[in-house]
Amino acid sequence: MDSGKKVEIVERYVSAYNARDIDTILSLYREDATMEDPYGTPPVSGKEALAALYQEGFDMGVVLALDGRPRCAGNAVAFPLLGTTEQGKLFIIDLFEFDADGRIERMRAYWGPESVEGEMEL
Amino acid sequence: MDSGKKVEIVERYVSAYNARDIDTILSLYREDATMEDPYGTPPVSGKEALAALYQEGFDMGVVLALDGRPRCAGNAVAFPLLGTTEQGKLFIIDLFEFDADGRIERMRAYWGPESVEGEMEL
Repeated sequence: MDSGKKVEIVERYVSAYNARDIDTILSLYREDATMEDPYGTPPVSGKEALAALYQEGFDMGVVLALDGRPRCAGNAVAFPLLGTTEQGKLFIIDLFEFDADGRIERMRAYWGPESVEGEMEL
Repeated sequence: MDSGKKVEIVERYVSAYNARDIDTILSLYREDATMEDPYGTPPVSGKEALAALYQEGFDMGVVLALDGRPRCAGNAVAFPLLGTTEQGKLFIIDLFEFDADGRIERMRAYWGPESVEGEMEL
């Protein structure tokens, strides 16, 4: 998969997130994709479960922005993100792995309690 | 594994890399660790093979610097790096997964041709 295509998906993902456009977000995923957010918690699968997880961030008022250049390799793209709310900041690295059709089949978000600045409650 | 410990290992790794201190770098890894640099290429395993891969970067004169905050999650840490040579820059995200003893058991580096600025030949 072309790197330009991957970066385009990352950019669509971030704008769709900020527009609370869950349909666009889900359209980037395979039906049976898994999401580990944060990595280390049990993987969530299925569009309803993914939608519920995104809704939690929307309810907190999280706004995402790229916090560095996306890095493409193999079937994957890794990219630093900054999540901001009125209460604080969260520093994240997301990792998408794509299937042969260019859909995200595995999403992992790397962040932990020490990735928070301010009073954000996660 | 404690996040502070992971970040300390990342910092030791970057300084050891820049000091060309291969013994310290290898001491952070398990004996049977695998390294995918870049991710998508066949994993390399064994201290000799890892040393050879690091030597390639040393021979190119690569100097590493953190390019953002390390993000800890589960048994892992993901961190953005900037590799610089006289010829150019390389934007990388490294991902370390640790075993129960705090040694790196799987290392993946995310970067591709479009992660290069300048004339660096990889």
